[in-house]
Amino acid sequence: KQEFSKYPTKAGRRSLSRSISQSSTDSYSSAASYTDSSDDETSPRDKAQVNTHGSSDFCVKNIKQAEFGRREIEIAEQDMSALISLRKRAQGEKPLAGAKIVGCTHITAQTAVLIETLVALGAQCRWTACNIYSTQNEVAAALAETGVPVFAWKGESEDDFWWCIDRCVNTEGWQANMILDDGGDLTHWVYKKYPSVFKKVRGIVEESVTGVHRLYQLSKAGKLCVPAMNVNDSVTKQKFDNLYCCRESILDGLKRTTDIMFGGKQVVVCGYGEVGKGCCTALKALGAIVCITEIDPICALQACMDGFRVVKLSEVIRQMDVVITCTGNKNVVTREQLDRMKNGCIVCNMGHSNTEIDVASLRSPELTWERVRSQVDHIIWPDGKRVVLLAEGRLLNLSCSTVPTFVLSITATTQALALIELFNAPEGRYKQDVYLLPKKMGKKNRLNFCSENVCNNYFFKFFFFFFTLLSLLANL
Amino acid sequence: KQEFSKYPTKAGRRSLSRSISQSSTDSYSSAASYTDSSDDETSPRDKAQVNTHGSSDFCVKNIKQAEFGRREIEIAEQDMSALISLRKRAQGEKPLAGAKIVGCTHITAQTAVLIETLVALGAQCRWTACNIYSTQNEVAAALAETGVPVFAWKGESEDDFWWCIDRCVNTEGWQANMILDDGGDLTHWVYKKYPSVFKKVRGIVEESVTGVHRLYQLSKAGKLCVPAMNVNDSVTKQKFDNLYCCRESILDGLKRTTDIMFGGKQVVVCGYGEVGKGCCTALKALGAIVCITEIDPICALQACMDGFRVVKLSEVIRQMDVVITCTGNKNVVTREQLDRMKNGCIVCNMGHSNTEIDVASLRSPELTWERVRSQVDHIIWPDGKRVVLLAEGRLLNLSCSTVPTFVLSITATTQALALIELFNAPEGRYKQDVYLLPKKMGKKNRLNFCSENVCNNYFFKFFFFFFTLLSLLANL
Amino acid sequence: KQEFSKYPTKAGRRSLSRSISQSSTDSYSSAASYTDSSDDETSPRDKAQVNTHGSSDFCVKNIKQAEFGRREIEIAEQDMSALISLRKRAQGEKPLAGAKIVGCTHITAQTAVLIETLVALGAQCRWTACNIYSTQNEVAAALAETGVPVFAWKGESEDDFWWCIDRCVNTEGWQANMILDDGGDLTHWVYKKYPSVFKKVRGIVEESVTGVHRLYQLSKAGKLCVPAMNVNDSVTKQKFDNLYCCRESILDGLKRTTDIMFGGKQVVVCGYGEVGKGCCTALKALGAIVCITEIDPICALQACMDGFRVVKLSEVIRQMDVVITCTGNKNVVTREQLDRMKNGCIVCNMGHSNTEIDVASLRSPELTWERVRSQVDHIIWPDGKRVVLLAEGRLLNLSCSTVPTFVLSITATTQALALIELFNAPEGRYKQDVYLLPKKMGKKNRLNFCSENVCNNYFFKFFFFFFTLLSLLANL
Amino acid sequence: KQEFSKYPTKAGRRSLSRSISQSSTDSYSSAASYTDSSDDETSPRDKAQVNTHGSSDFCVKNIKQAEFGRREIEIAEQDMSALISLRKRAQGEKPLAGAKIVGCTHITAQTAVLIETLVALGAQCRWTACNIYSTQNEVAAALAETGVPVFAWKGESEDDFWWCIDRCVNTEGWQANMILDDGGDLTHWVYKKYPSVFKKVRGIVEESVTGVHRLYQLSKAGKLCVPAMNVNDSVTKQKFDNLYCCRESILDGLKRTTDIMFGGKQVVVCGYGEVGKGCCTALKALGAIVCITEIDPICALQACMDGFRVVKLSEVIRQMDVVITCTGNKNVVTREQLDRMKNGCIVCNMGHSNTEIDVASLRSPELTWERVRSQVDHIIWPDGKRVVLLAEGRLLNLSCSTVPTFVLSITATTQALALIELFNAPEGRYKQDVYLLPKKMGKKNRLNFCSENVCNNYFFKFFFFFFTLLSLLANL
Repeated sequence: KQEFSKYPTKAGRRSLSRSISQSSTDSYSSAASYTDSSDDETSPRDKAQVNTHGSSDFCVKNIKQAEFGRREIEIAEQDMSALISLRKRAQGEKPLAGAKIVGCTHITAQTAVLIETLVALGAQCRWTACNIYSTQNEVAAALAETGVPVFAWKGESEDDFWWCIDRCVNTEGWQANMILDDGGDLTHWVYKKYPSVFKKVRGIVEESVTGVHRLYQLSKAGKLCVPAMNVNDSVTKQKFDNLYCCRESILDGLKRTTDIMFGGKQVVVCGYGEVGKGCCTALKALGAIVCITEIDPICALQACMDGFRVVKLSEVIRQMDVVITCTGNKNVVTREQLDRMKNGCIVCNMGHSNTEIDVASLRSPELTWERVRSQVDHIIWPDGKRVVLLAEGRLLNLSCSTVPTFVLSITATTQALALIELFNAPEGRYKQDVYLLPKKMGKKNRLNFCSENVCNNYFFKFFFFFFTLLSLLANL
Repeated sequence: KQEFSKYPTKAGRRSLSRSISQSSTDSYSSAASYTDSSDDETSPRDKAQVNTHGSSDFCVKNIKQAEFGRREIEIAEQDMSALISLRKRAQGEKPLAGAKIVGCTHITAQTAVLIETLVALGAQCRWTACNIYSTQNEVAAALAETGVPVFAWKGESEDDFWWCIDRCVNTEGWQANMILDDGGDLTHWVYKKYPSVFKKVRGIVEESVTGVHRLYQLSKAGKLCVPAMNVNDSVTKQKFDNLYCCRESILDGLKRTTDIMFGGKQVVVCGYGEVGKGCCTALKALGAIVCITEIDPICALQACMDGFRVVKLSEVIRQMDVVITCTGNKNVVTREQLDRMKNGCIVCNMGHSNTEIDVASLRSPELTWERVRSQVDHIIWPDGKRVVLLAEGRLLNLSCSTVPTFVLSITATTQALALIELFNAPEGRYKQDVYLLPKKMGKKNRLNFCSENVCNNYFFKFFFFFFTLLSLLANL
Repeated sequence: KQEFSKYPTKAGRRSLSRSISQSSTDSYSSAASYTDSSDDETSPRDKAQVNTHGSSDFCVKNIKQAEFGRREIEIAEQDMSALISLRKRAQGEKPLAGAKIVGCTHITAQTAVLIETLVALGAQCRWTACNIYSTQNEVAAALAETGVPVFAWKGESEDDFWWCIDRCVNTEGWQANMILDDGGDLTHWVYKKYPSVFKKVRGIVEESVTGVHRLYQLSKAGKLCVPAMNVNDSVTKQKFDNLYCCRESILDGLKRTTDIMFGGKQVVVCGYGEVGKGCCTALKALGAIVCITEIDPICALQACMDGFRVVKLSEVIRQMDVVITCTGNKNVVTREQLDRMKNGCIVCNMGHSNTEIDVASLRSPELTWERVRSQVDHIIWPDGKRVVLLAEGRLLNLSCSTVPTFVLSITATTQALALIELFNAPEGRYKQDVYLLPKKMGKKNRLNFCSENVCNNYFFKFFFFFFTLLSLLANL
Repeated sequence: KQEFSKYPTKAGRRSLSRSISQSSTDSYSSAASYTDSSDDETSPRDKAQVNTHGSSDFCVKNIKQAEFGRREIEIAEQDMSALISLRKRAQGEKPLAGAKIVGCTHITAQTAVLIETLVALGAQCRWTACNIYSTQNEVAAALAETGVPVFAWKGESEDDFWWCIDRCVNTEGWQANMILDDGGDLTHWVYKKYPSVFKKVRGIVEESVTGVHRLYQLSKAGKLCVPAMNVNDSVTKQKFDNLYCCRESILDGLKRTTDIMFGGKQVVVCGYGEVGKGCCTALKALGAIVCITEIDPICALQACMDGFRVVKLSEVIRQMDVVITCTGNKNVVTREQLDRMKNGCIVCNMGHSNTEIDVASLRSPELTWERVRSQVDHIIWPDGKRVVLLAEGRLLNLSCSTVPTFVLSITATTQALALIELFNAPEGRYKQDVYLLPKKMGKKNRLNFCSENVCNNYFFKFFFFFFTLLSLLANL
């Protein structure tokens, strides 16, 4: 396991995924989680639970929460029309009949919709969590109740984590032939522990930066004996995870934690990449007075042409109401700058790592930390000045806001398509390498797309993925 | 008490205030309330509680929650700089020395900042809640702990409500000489029960539409024997409560309840008044495709010139992802239109009353209601179609979002200024009538204002109210 | 004539109208004027011209330009659908049959559409210009060619001006019974010179601030013996002339004179009233970095909530690329500030008078003026610094941009409706006073409006005015 | 010359450049051209002209226009601060001392600023026009007056065109060692006619798509014996020529031709690439109601997420006020759709070629064309319906609007930097190939950039290019 630390999450910004080595230290707290922190301290591994169909091939916190989890899944379905369309349409063809998919992802309502879609398309699935904190217990219960073997709960230990993965893979009379992974831990486990299973897998679909990095390493070392699909770098995922998603989550994250009014607030955004662009667009639109720091001249020029003042952080820091980092660099906000902030200034991070704000420097004896709400700390200077630090400098959009279902829907649909493609690909189309989904659709389908009325949003989503699907299937 | 029903809340849209007769039937649920619903069923009236200073002149849910409430107050102070500035500056002068204020408002962290400012300015205060559901118990505890006699808790009965008011007014050795009211219930009680106290009051400050309406009625009937200040119709309050506030709360309310992604969503907003304008601006900015229904030709023309399609609801209803009402009219969204909505359509109300959407028509046997989250109902048609109804058609921004502290700060500062003005006004300036705060400041102060650097937001807020204050005091 | 100077154009900002006493000193130059400045120096009064129908009852620059003028009128008709709709619809009824209208307005393509509509509705018209510079000679020719007696050319002398008015009014066998005026000069002439005609007039429709002011003076003095309609203060006119019109003309005016790129430019807008709001919205949208100066606290607060920095002019003046005044005050931009501007700074005025920028202070010996284009002067400091002054500080939108036809269409339609209303009003409805057009339409018509599909812009414009018309007619 | 037709301007959209074979048929008309069309019909080649310094080594329309041209150049300098900065700074070093540059570009005020900068940096220049219509005669005169041998006038014949080029290259006692070309005609002429000169050239800088294409062809054929710099594909040029430039020129082009009001207009934009994005942003911001047609699903999804309705052209065509093409495809607007447009609909093209609108189909006997203004035609249907066609379907932004000086400044600075780099590059750095300017600056300079205050726009422009320059020079 030691070797995992070799794989840094280089640009894992929005991937939602962490390898166990990282996530074991960081807590993951979703504002969307409605999971009760009940007093039941018994480990799920020590409980004997049976669903209403008599099956006990699962391990969740509390199977009795299934009904509440079902509600959450139904809510999620409302905004995942692409997946539902795929489900309805491909249901007849059962393009995944015969697929035995072992999956390792965040266990949320949105993932549940994906899993149930895969089942509807003919697949058999076994599932586990890719993060020890992120599981929505009720959703896991709901999945288990319908017969999907799920092994996951919120607050697993590291030992639990690997035990769950193993229970997914190592089951009698069932051998996985497809892997859907987020972070690469499942892939690694199968590769190391069950090499014979690994060799017979038809394909791997991987979503995260870390996982993709691991796959490329394997491939480079000549050890990747199955084709893999890199979903992380698909156009739609990149645009949605950054620009469109952050445009909304910056507002949501700030609002839920601080109830701040945006109008008239002086905000500095550090970094004008896709994440910074999303943040700035939203804040400007709601009446905040936004300025930018940027070291890349092209991005700085874009900020300028988009109507933002490009400034040096140290020159404006005294007047700012909100400071947001989105650079991917370290120590963008230094202790010296924190010292000069005005009383009540809010500091948060939308960028890659939790080191953009030098939080460590704040853990010194002369400063008092006061936890005023979940994810909200007041750092109090000797003179009484308070700085409001959100999520201890970790990713605001993961810690304090929900990722919109629609965004997850885009990724989930892409994963489903990748699975269908890999499972049905004729011998020889995919070698033992890492592939990207084709970004452009076939000529024929584009024309179809054009000739349909796509002003209706519902149909738009449908057609978009339907034709992508068709273009994939058309190649068979 | 029967006579209260005579006073309809004509346009009480954003006033946060309800007379008891209305609020006794409607529930008030704030997303910002962090009050635990602990199992303690004992009525506060039956408890004997003492604060750490030995006082028991209060009645709250649990005095032990004071520390948590203090945190909430401190958070609120961060975004109420105008009030804090006022507190700091006028502290030396004690312009409210001698004032004995009895208050009846929502008991929230923001009100607490107001009350403590009044105290800092020299006033003695006794306080009660204007709504039986809206009290933040911890905040009430924090106030009681610092020695303010507070009589309020979440979930009062109607009897409790009047008991609390009476305990505020009717106390030995202390007679109120100022009234700060929100809804007119306190004023009514003093007027009816303690006419001798009423006559000696120096002034009444009233925030709500309902309360103002009552005052005008009294005045018209020649029974108003004290001057009153109508805070509700001040320019700042109107602009903030409608345009600026709704611009943010529509996003917040939708996000907290449904996690919807705004980008690409088809939204119809019914009504293009100030509330509608706020909603449309925000949604358009975040990438929603917004169209408008409007019957007033001037407003329709404005919508048109602002780049929105003006449509008939029935013509677009089938394609909409979200339907929002902000008209102030009844049955803007009819059952027939609800029948024609697509699966997953979200319906909510930002307008005045809970009758804009014909919710009553949905309570019929062929439809199934499913409560999926707090404030979120799925209405299920026989064919499985679901419509997502938020807050049962009540005000989304009151039910499912928080009112930004900054907005409340504007109103609270105005209330404080009105109290100072009325308390210090020389004999004869104010007759027995209802007054508005002067909307414009004196010439002299305007010039000062101009000659200061107001680019810094913090100072801006300060100067704005400081000069308003000065202009009021200058008239003395 | 001396007495005209008594009537200051108090707020004539966007009225396009000047009394002769003012316009005799200011030049009026329209970027839209395609009038050739041919070498023909002969005064039109000395020419004998006959149109192709044999009539010589007109006096224009050159009747041969009629065909070119007809093109301009046809272009204008494209964007005046409300008027065309009115023309088509009311053509059958001839609601102006019997009306003998004498008019005095700017003679432009848009006015021509109005005049020809009045004729189509049954009126007889005689027309003259309200400004000695603004006449489009070709359009005057086109009107004369179709038989409308027009007396106007570009570059009239003051004597010509009054001669033209007199020729309109004083004609054998024809006596005006309606007056359409812009500036009040025609009304004044008729009142003074032809009191017997004045007494028999059925109504006066006046567009300009100055003219309305004169009417109110007459009315106050008890000398107004006919009903008059104040078109200037109608809601639509105010909104369109300021907010919507300036939103476009600031861009147009800057572009045509300087070819400046807006993106990334530092702009300061002085004043955040309706004009300032329009300018800021447009410039911000195109990527300019906009800040505001404002002395009114309410407007300053609005600027702040709309996301603009509120600053002191002297603090930012050094960095600005563009300075725009829209205050209505004097010397908003002082010589000292002009001295501190950077090389190449553009200065212009969108506000009321040409004294917002202290242009007079620039006419001093140490500065060199260089006219680089029409309406563009470089003021050169001894050290070589150049400041770019547009339109010599006069109104940019009148001097260097065109007023969109659609805006003029709104006003023209209102004028037509006012004429119809006054001409058809039953005895006694209108006294000898100044009236506003009813701002709201009748209940009945509003419902009709609501029940029509107005998403189509063309129909929208039609219905809007049609129903206004109906509501007026319905009162008959 | 026949071979020129082999090089199609594949994506020459915004390049301003045409090879002679193309431009010989298309007219080029710039709204910014203030060139008089005086009656002087004498060919400049037949005139004997001498500037005030006694030189006659030039050939322009009228040397006496020099002073007016100087004004235009001075205006242009105001918005080309990057170039001026470069001029000032590098003046001491004379990095182009010894360079003998022969240039072939549009002869405009902006080019003149470039040429005079090159001269200030030490270069000797001879110049000619790359388009037979685009020369600003006064500017050419101003350049000739200061001693730059210029051979260009507006309205050259094709023979004149090549004669001018030859006069530039073929002069006694002077041999070019650098080529700055726009379109490749000059390069081609030197390559064909003066191979010995060509071989000794140190470098070619080429701006246009066509020219770059030709260079790559030469390189592929092994005939390119000198290094060449492809300026066309630099990041700044692409972003500015498309997104930022079109955002402004769509408004400018529509306004100058039609005086249309944007607010409330129904607009359909065909294509949501960079050009379409620019157009949509601007029109939406000014209150137009914009919808999109798009066949690429990724772009369609972006349009959707940016809040635009994605539609089929044929479904909305009846309601549109304005139709704009930006696709790069042919016959995007068909005759059938033109037939269905409403009266007064404006049709124009911002895309690549003049075939996006099927203009050819409109040249049929049943339709009447009426030229109502320069660049504006009314196409009249038998029933009287008029469609307003701008620039006969050619590029609106080239035909009816000016390219902002700032945009041209970006390109001109890049050209200057490319010349400096090529001229000073040590032996061996550049082979006989086509190069791009390095897109990123050196690490060292980036840090410098970061440590300077770049909030001031003026300095921003300076630093941006200064550091780019430094990073180039640092490599020496």
